[in-house]
Amino acid sequence: MNDRLQKQLDFILEIDKEKNILRQTHLSNHGRRENDAEHAWHMAIMTYLLKEYANEEIDLAKTMMMCLIHDIVEIDAGDTYAYDAENLKTQKAREDLAKQRIYSLLPEDQKEELIALFDEFEANQTPEARFAKAMDNFQPLLLNNSNDGGDWKEHQVTSTQVYRRQSKTELGSKQIYQVTDEIIQEHIKKSNLK
Amino acid sequence: MNDRLQKQLDFILEIDKEKNILRQTHLSNHGRRENDAEHAWHMAIMTYLLKEYANEEIDLAKTMMMCLIHDIVEIDAGDTYAYDAENLKTQKAREDLAKQRIYSLLPEDQKEELIALFDEFEANQTPEARFAKAMDNFQPLLLNNSNDGGDWKEHQVTSTQVYRRQSKTELGSKQIYQVTDEIIQEHIKKSNLK
Repeated sequence: MNDRLQKQLDFILEIDKEKNILRQTHLSNHGRRENDAEHAWHMAIMTYLLKEYANEEIDLAKTMMMCLIHDIVEIDAGDTYAYDAENLKTQKAREDLAKQRIYSLLPEDQKEELIALFDEFEANQTPEARFAKAMDNFQPLLLNNSNDGGDWKEHQVTSTQVYRRQSKTELGSKQIYQVTDEIIQEHIKKSNLK
Repeated sequence: MNDRLQKQLDFILEIDKEKNILRQTHLSNHGRRENDAEHAWHMAIMTYLLKEYANEEIDLAKTMMMCLIHDIVEIDAGDTYAYDAENLKTQKAREDLAKQRIYSLLPEDQKEELIALFDEFEANQTPEARFAKAMDNFQPLLLNNSNDGGDWKEHQVTSTQVYRRQSKTELGSKQIYQVTDEIIQEHIKKSNLK
Protein backbone atom coordinates (compact mmCIF):
# COMPACT_ATOMS: atom_id res chain seq x y z
CA MET A 1 0.00 0.00 0.00
CA ASN A 2 1.32 3.46 -0.80
CA ASP A 3 2.11 5.98 1.93
CA ARG A 4 -0.76 8.32 1.06
CA LEU A 5 -3.44 5.63 1.33
CA GLN A 6 -1.86 4.28 4.52
CA LYS A 7 -2.15 7.73 6.13
CA GLN A 8 -5.77 8.06 5.03
CA LEU A 9 -6.61 4.67 6.54
CA ASP A 10 -4.78 5.51 9.78
CA PHE A 11 -6.96 8.62 10.14
CA ILE A 12 -10.13 6.69 9.26
CA LEU A 13 -9.37 4.14 11.97
CA GLU A 14 -8.46 6.83 14.50
CA ILE A 15 -11.79 8.64 14.17
CA ASP A 16 -13.61 5.43 15.04
CA LYS A 17 -12.99 6.60 18.63
CA GLU A 18 -15.52 9.41 18.18
CA LYS A 19 -18.24 6.76 18.63
CA ASN A 20 -17.23 6.55 22.29
CA ILE A 21 -17.49 10.29 23.06
CA LEU A 22 -20.78 10.76 24.90
CA ARG A 23 -22.83 13.94 24.85
CA GLN A 24 -25.32 15.21 27.43
CA THR A 25 -28.21 14.76 24.99
CA HIS A 26 -30.32 11.60 25.25
CA LEU A 27 -31.77 9.68 22.31
CA SER A 28 -35.51 9.95 21.67
CA ASN A 29 -37.91 7.74 23.63
CA HIS A 30 -35.87 8.50 26.78
CA GLY A 31 -32.96 6.52 25.41
CA ARG A 32 -29.30 6.38 26.42
CA ARG A 33 -26.88 9.29 25.95
CA GLU A 34 -26.00 10.08 22.35
CA ASN A 35 -22.43 9.94 21.06
CA ASP A 36 -20.68 12.42 18.77
CA ALA A 37 -20.70 10.22 15.66
CA GLU A 38 -24.46 9.68 15.89
CA HIS A 39 -25.02 13.40 16.43
CA ALA A 40 -22.90 14.23 13.35
CA TRP A 41 -24.69 11.62 11.20
CA HIS A 42 -28.04 13.14 12.15
CA MET A 43 -26.85 16.71 11.43
CA ALA A 44 -25.58 15.77 7.95
CA ILE A 45 -28.92 14.22 6.96
CA MET A 46 -30.74 17.24 8.39
CA THR A 47 -28.53 19.51 6.28
CA TYR A 48 -29.58 17.65 3.13
CA LEU A 49 -33.29 17.63 4.00
CA LEU A 50 -33.60 21.17 5.41
CA LYS A 51 -31.27 23.06 3.04
CA GLU A 52 -34.27 24.89 1.52
CA TYR A 53 -34.50 26.86 4.81
CA ALA A 54 -30.91 28.16 4.73
CA ASN A 55 -30.79 31.99 4.70
CA GLU A 56 -28.16 31.88 1.96
CA GLU A 57 -27.31 29.31 -0.70
CA ILE A 58 -24.97 26.61 0.61
CA ASP A 59 -22.55 24.11 -0.93
CA LEU A 60 -24.16 20.86 0.12
CA ALA A 61 -21.18 18.45 0.19
CA LYS A 62 -19.07 21.03 2.04
CA THR A 63 -21.73 21.68 4.68
CA MET A 64 -22.38 17.95 5.17
CA MET A 65 -18.66 17.25 5.61
CA MET A 66 -18.42 20.15 8.07
CA CYS A 67 -21.19 18.52 10.11
CA LEU A 68 -19.59 15.09 9.91
CA ILE A 69 -16.16 16.20 11.19
CA HIS A 70 -16.97 19.10 13.54
CA ASP A 71 -16.60 17.01 16.72
CA ILE A 72 -13.54 14.90 15.80
CA VAL A 73 -11.39 17.07 18.11
CA GLU A 74 -13.47 15.77 21.03
CA ILE A 75 -11.70 12.39 20.72
CA ASP A 76 -8.90 14.08 22.70
CA ALA A 77 -10.63 17.15 24.12
CA GLY A 78 -13.84 15.48 25.32
CA ASP A 79 -17.36 16.82 24.93
CA THR A 80 -17.92 20.26 26.47
CA TYR A 81 -21.54 20.72 27.51
CA ALA A 82 -23.02 23.91 26.08
CA TYR A 83 -23.96 25.12 29.58
CA ASP A 84 -20.78 24.15 31.45
CA ALA A 85 -19.11 27.55 32.11
CA GLU A 86 -15.90 26.16 33.67
CA ASN A 87 -15.03 23.76 30.85
CA LEU A 88 -16.01 26.27 28.18
CA LYS A 89 -13.06 28.44 29.30
CA THR A 90 -10.46 25.81 28.38
CA GLN A 91 -12.33 24.33 25.40
CA LYS A 92 -10.47 26.24 22.67
CA ALA A 93 -6.98 25.33 23.95
CA ARG A 94 -7.89 21.66 24.38
CA GLU A 95 -9.44 21.47 20.92
CA ASP A 96 -6.49 23.20 19.22
CA LEU A 97 -4.11 20.54 20.52
CA ALA A 98 -6.48 17.77 19.45
CA LYS A 99 -6.91 19.29 16.00
CA GLN A 100 -3.17 19.26 15.37
CA ARG A 101 -2.64 15.70 16.57
CA ILE A 102 -5.57 14.03 14.86
CA TYR A 103 -5.58 15.79 11.47
CA SER A 104 -1.79 15.33 11.21
CA LEU A 105 -2.47 11.65 10.59
CA LEU A 106 -3.75 12.61 7.11
CA PRO A 107 -1.66 13.44 4.01
CA GLU A 108 -0.67 17.14 4.14
CA ASP A 109 -3.24 18.39 1.59
CA GLN A 110 -6.16 16.67 3.32
CA LYS A 111 -4.89 17.74 6.74
CA GLU A 112 -4.98 21.36 5.57
CA GLU A 113 -8.37 20.92 3.90
CA LEU A 114 -10.07 19.41 6.95
CA ILE A 115 -8.51 21.84 9.42
CA ALA A 116 -9.67 24.72 7.21
CA LEU A 117 -13.17 23.20 7.17
CA PHE A 118 -13.19 22.80 10.96
CA ASP A 119 -11.86 26.35 11.51
CA GLU A 120 -14.49 27.70 9.12
CA PHE A 121 -17.18 25.95 11.15
CA GLU A 122 -15.85 27.40 14.39
CA ALA A 123 -15.54 30.95 12.99
CA ASN A 124 -19.19 30.85 11.84
CA GLN A 125 -18.68 33.48 9.13
CA THR A 126 -19.75 31.68 5.94
CA PRO A 127 -23.18 30.46 4.75
CA GLU A 128 -22.04 26.82 5.14
CA ALA A 129 -20.72 27.34 8.68
CA ARG A 130 -23.81 29.24 9.75
CA PHE A 131 -26.14 26.52 8.48
CA ALA A 132 -24.02 23.72 9.99
CA LYS A 133 -24.05 25.60 13.32
CA ALA A 134 -27.85 25.89 13.11
CA MET A 135 -28.02 22.11 12.66
CA ASP A 136 -25.60 21.64 15.58
CA ASN A 137 -28.02 23.58 17.79
CA PHE A 138 -31.29 22.28 16.34
CA GLN A 139 -30.50 18.54 16.41
CA PRO A 140 -30.17 18.18 20.22
CA LEU A 141 -33.12 20.56 20.68
CA LEU A 142 -35.33 18.20 18.66
CA LEU A 143 -34.23 15.17 20.71
CA ASN A 144 -34.60 17.01 23.99
CA ASN A 145 -38.03 18.31 22.93
CA SER A 146 -39.11 14.72 22.17
CA ASN A 147 -38.02 13.77 25.71
CA ASP A 148 -40.08 16.51 27.39
CA GLY A 149 -37.00 18.69 28.01
CA GLY A 150 -35.33 16.06 30.17
CA ASP A 151 -31.76 17.22 29.44
CA TRP A 152 -32.56 20.79 30.49
CA LYS A 153 -34.31 19.63 33.65
CA GLU A 154 -31.38 17.37 34.58
CA HIS A 155 -28.92 20.28 34.33
CA GLN A 156 -31.33 22.97 35.59
CA VAL A 157 -30.73 25.05 32.49
CA THR A 158 -32.39 28.48 32.25
CA SER A 159 -34.27 29.93 29.29
CA THR A 160 -31.69 32.74 29.12
CA GLN A 161 -28.92 30.18 28.62
CA VAL A 162 -30.87 28.37 25.91
CA TYR A 163 -31.70 31.59 24.06
CA ARG A 164 -28.06 32.69 24.21
CA ARG A 165 -26.92 29.45 22.62
CA GLN A 166 -29.73 29.17 20.10
CA SER A 167 -29.38 32.79 18.94
CA LYS A 168 -26.77 31.64 16.39
CA THR A 169 -29.37 29.41 14.74
CA GLU A 170 -31.03 32.54 13.34
CA LEU A 171 -27.85 33.42 11.39
CA GLY A 172 -28.14 30.12 9.50
CA SER A 173 -31.89 29.86 9.11
CA LYS A 174 -34.63 32.25 10.15
CA GLN A 175 -37.28 29.56 9.68
CA ILE A 176 -35.50 26.97 11.81
CA TYR A 177 -34.99 29.65 14.45
CA GLN A 178 -38.74 30.34 14.45
CA VAL A 179 -39.41 26.67 15.25
CA THR A 180 -36.65 26.78 17.89
CA ASP A 181 -38.32 29.77 19.53
CA GLU A 182 -41.73 28.02 19.55
CA ILE A 183 -40.19 24.94 21.18
CA ILE A 184 -38.40 26.98 23.86
CA GLN A 185 -41.57 28.96 24.67
CA GLU A 186 -43.48 25.72 25.10
CA HIS A 187 -40.90 24.37 27.57
CA ILE A 188 -40.93 27.65 29.53
CA LYS A 189 -44.72 27.27 29.88
CA LYS A 190 -44.28 23.69 31.10
CA SER A 191 -41.57 24.84 33.57
CA ASN A 192 -39.00 22.52 31.97
CA LEU A 193 -36.76 25.58 31.69
CA LYS A 194 -36.11 27.82 34.64
CA MET B 1 -45.23 25.42 11.67
CA ASN B 2 -46.22 24.58 8.08
CA ASP B 3 -47.15 21.06 7.05
CA ARG B 4 -44.02 20.51 4.94
CA LEU B 5 -41.59 21.36 7.72
CA GLN B 6 -43.62 19.30 10.21
CA LYS B 7 -43.28 16.23 7.95
CA GLN B 8 -39.54 16.79 7.58
CA LEU B 9 -39.12 17.01 11.35
CA ASP B 10 -41.26 13.89 11.90
CA PHE B 11 -38.93 11.96 9.58
CA ILE B 12 -35.81 13.42 11.25
CA LEU B 13 -37.06 12.30 14.66
CA GLU B 14 -38.07 8.86 13.35
CA ILE B 15 -34.60 8.07 11.99
CA ASP B 16 -33.12 8.68 15.44
CA LYS B 17 -34.09 5.03 16.00
CA GLU B 18 -31.32 3.91 13.61
CA LYS B 19 -28.87 4.58 16.47
CA ASN B 20 -30.32 1.54 18.23
CA ILE B 21 -29.89 -0.92 15.34
CA LEU B 22 -26.82 -2.99 16.15
CA ARG B 23 -24.55 -4.61 13.57
CA GLN B 24 -22.29 -7.63 13.94
CA THR B 25 -19.17 -5.47 13.55
CA HIS B 26 -17.35 -4.37 16.69
CA LEU B 27 -15.69 -0.98 17.20
CA SER B 28 -11.89 -0.80 17.10
CA ASN B 29 -9.89 -1.65 20.25
CA HIS B 30 -12.22 -4.63 20.79
CA GLY B 31 -15.11 -2.29 21.55
CA ARG B 32 -18.85 -2.85 21.72
CA ARG B 33 -21.00 -3.64 18.66
CA GLU B 34 -21.38 -0.80 16.21
CA ASN B 35 -24.77 0.66 15.30
CA ASP B 36 -26.07 1.61 11.85
CA ALA B 37 -25.83 5.39 12.36
CA GLU B 38 -22.17 5.17 13.37
CA HIS B 39 -21.42 2.90 10.40
CA ALA B 40 -23.10 5.37 8.01
CA TRP B 41 -21.25 8.37 9.51
CA HIS B 42 -17.95 6.57 9.02
CA MET B 43 -18.79 5.60 5.41
CA ALA B 44 -19.71 9.19 4.47
CA ILE B 45 -16.41 10.57 5.77
CA MET B 46 -14.55 7.75 3.99
CA THR B 47 -16.33 8.69 0.76
CA TYR B 48 -15.06 12.26 1.07
CA LEU B 49 -11.48 11.24 1.92
CA LEU B 50 -11.10 8.32 -0.51
CA LYS B 51 -12.99 9.68 -3.54
CA GLU B 52 -9.71 9.93 -5.50
CA TYR B 53 -9.74 6.11 -5.69
CA ALA B 54 -13.19 5.82 -7.29
CA ASN B 55 -13.04 4.05 -10.68
CA GLU B 56 -15.33 6.69 -12.16
CA GLU B 57 -16.05 10.31 -11.23
CA ILE B 58 -18.70 10.58 -8.52
CA ASP B 59 -21.10 13.28 -7.32
CA LEU B 60 -19.86 13.77 -3.78
CA ALA B 61 -22.99 15.07 -1.99
CA LYS B 62 -25.11 12.36 -3.64
CA THR B 63 -22.73 9.56 -2.68
CA MET B 64 -22.40 10.83 0.88
CA MET B 65 -26.19 11.03 1.29
CA MET B 66 -26.51 7.53 -0.16
CA CYS B 67 -24.12 6.31 2.53
CA LEU B 68 -25.93 8.22 5.28
CA ILE B 69 -29.40 6.81 4.49
CA HIS B 70 -28.67 3.32 3.12
CA ASP B 71 -29.56 1.54 6.38
CA ILE B 72 -32.62 3.55 7.46
CA VAL B 73 -34.88 0.66 6.37
CA GLU B 74 -33.25 -1.44 9.10
CA ILE B 75 -35.20 0.55 11.72
CA ASP B 76 -38.10 -1.78 10.84
CA ALA B 77 -36.33 -4.61 8.99
CA GLY B 78 -33.40 -5.10 11.40
CA ASP B 79 -29.78 -5.64 10.43
CA THR B 80 -29.16 -8.65 8.20
CA TYR B 81 -25.66 -10.02 8.68
CA ALA B 82 -23.82 -10.38 5.41
CA TYR B 83 -23.19 -14.08 6.08
CA ASP B 84 -26.64 -15.06 7.42
CA ALA B 85 -28.13 -17.12 4.53
CA GLU B 86 -31.59 -17.60 6.10
CA ASN B 87 -32.31 -13.95 6.82
CA LEU B 88 -30.84 -12.84 3.49
CA LYS B 89 -33.75 -14.66 1.76
CA THR B 90 -36.39 -12.41 3.34
CA GLN B 91 -34.31 -9.24 3.49
CA LYS B 92 -35.69 -7.60 0.32
CA ALA B 93 -39.36 -8.06 1.30
CA ARG B 94 -38.76 -6.75 4.83
CA GLU B 95 -36.82 -3.75 3.59
CA ASP B 96 -39.43 -2.87 0.93
CA LEU B 97 -42.13 -2.59 3.58
CA ALA B 98 -39.85 -0.51 5.81
CA LYS B 99 -38.92 1.77 2.92
CA GLN B 100 -42.55 2.61 2.22
CA ARG B 101 -43.47 3.27 5.83
CA ILE B 102 -40.46 5.35 6.85
CA TYR B 103 -39.94 7.49 3.75
CA SER B 104 -43.71 8.21 3.59
CA LEU B 105 -43.22 10.44 6.61
CA LEU B 106 -41.47 12.97 4.31
CA PRO B 107 -43.11 15.44 1.91
CA GLU B 108 -43.86 13.64 -1.40
CA ASP B 109 -40.94 15.11 -3.39
CA GLN B 110 -38.35 14.21 -0.74
CA LYS B 111 -39.94 10.78 -0.23
CA GLU B 112 -39.47 10.09 -3.96
CA GLU B 113 -35.94 11.52 -3.95
CA LEU B 114 -34.71 9.45 -1.02
CA ILE B 115 -36.39 6.23 -2.17
CA ALA B 116 -34.76 6.74 -5.58
CA LEU B 117 -31.40 7.23 -3.87
CA PHE B 118 -31.85 4.09 -1.77
CA ASP B 119 -32.99 2.04 -4.80
CA GLU B 120 -30.00 3.31 -6.78
CA PHE B 121 -27.68 2.16 -3.99
CA GLU B 122 -29.29 -1.27 -3.91
CA ALA B 123 -29.18 -1.70 -7.71
CA ASN B 124 -25.44 -0.88 -7.73
CA GLN B 125 -25.46 0.28 -11.36
CA THR B 126 -24.14 3.87 -11.14
CA PRO B 127 -20.70 5.25 -10.20
CA GLU B 128 -22.12 6.70 -6.96
CA ALA B 129 -23.81 3.44 -5.94
CA ARG B 130 -20.72 1.39 -6.75
CA PHE B 131 -18.47 3.62 -4.66
CA ALA B 132 -20.95 3.76 -1.75
CA LYS B 133 -21.17 -0.06 -1.86
CA ALA B 134 -17.37 -0.27 -1.77
CA MET B 135 -17.40 1.89 1.37
CA ASP B 136 -20.19 -0.29 2.85
CA ASN B 137 -17.90 -3.30 2.44
CA PHE B 138 -14.59 -1.65 3.30
CA GLN B 139 -15.64 0.11 6.53
CA PRO B 140 -16.43 -3.05 8.56
CA LEU B 141 -13.39 -4.79 7.04
CA LEU B 142 -11.15 -2.05 8.44
CA LEU B 143 -12.68 -2.34 11.91
CA ASN B 144 -12.57 -6.12 11.85
CA ASN B 145 -8.96 -6.04 10.63
CA SER B 146 -8.05 -3.77 13.56
CA ASN B 147 -9.63 -6.33 15.91
CA ASP B 148 -7.59 -9.23 14.52
CA GLY B 149 -10.55 -10.60 12.53
CA GLY B 150 -12.66 -11.12 15.65
CA ASP B 151 -16.02 -10.79 13.87
CA TRP B 152 -15.09 -13.45 11.32
CA LYS B 153 -13.82 -15.81 14.01
CA GLU B 154 -16.99 -15.34 16.07
CA HIS B 155 -19.20 -16.31 13.12
CA GLN B 156 -16.77 -18.86 11.60
CA VAL B 157 -16.85 -17.07 8.27
CA THR B 158 -14.94 -18.60 5.35
CA SER B 159 -12.63 -16.82 2.92
CA THR B 160 -14.97 -17.82 0.07
CA GLN B 161 -17.83 -15.98 1.76
CA VAL B 162 -15.71 -12.90 2.34
CA TYR B 163 -14.46 -12.85 -1.26
CA ARG B 164 -18.00 -13.24 -2.58
CA ARG B 165 -19.17 -10.23 -0.60
CA GLN B 166 -16.10 -8.09 -1.19
CA SER B 167 -16.06 -8.74 -4.95
CA LYS B 168 -18.43 -5.78 -5.43
CA THR B 169 -15.81 -3.45 -3.93
CA GLU B 170 -13.78 -3.83 -7.14
CA LEU B 171 -16.63 -2.31 -9.17
CA GLY B 172 -16.37 0.89 -7.13
CA SER B 173 -12.61 1.09 -6.64
CA LYS B 174 -9.84 -1.15 -7.94
CA GLN B 175 -7.36 0.35 -5.48
CA ILE B 176 -9.56 -0.17 -2.42
CA TYR B 177 -10.19 -3.71 -3.62
CA GLN B 178 -6.44 -4.32 -3.80
CA VAL B 179 -6.11 -3.34 -0.12
CA THR B 180 -9.15 -5.50 0.68
CA ASP B 181 -7.48 -8.47 -0.98
CA GLU B 182 -4.23 -7.91 0.97
CA ILE B 183 -6.16 -7.79 4.24
CA ILE B 184 -8.11 -10.97 3.48
CA GLN B 185 -4.93 -12.83 2.49
CA GLU B 186 -3.30 -11.82 5.76
CA HIS B 187 -6.24 -13.18 7.77
CA ILE B 188 -6.22 -16.43 5.82
CA LYS B 189 -2.56 -16.83 6.76
CA LYS B 190 -3.37 -16.18 10.41
CA SER B 191 -6.26 -18.71 10.22
CA ASN B 192 -8.77 -16.03 11.22
CA LEU B 193 -10.75 -17.06 8.14
CA LYS B 194 -11.61 -20.67 7.46
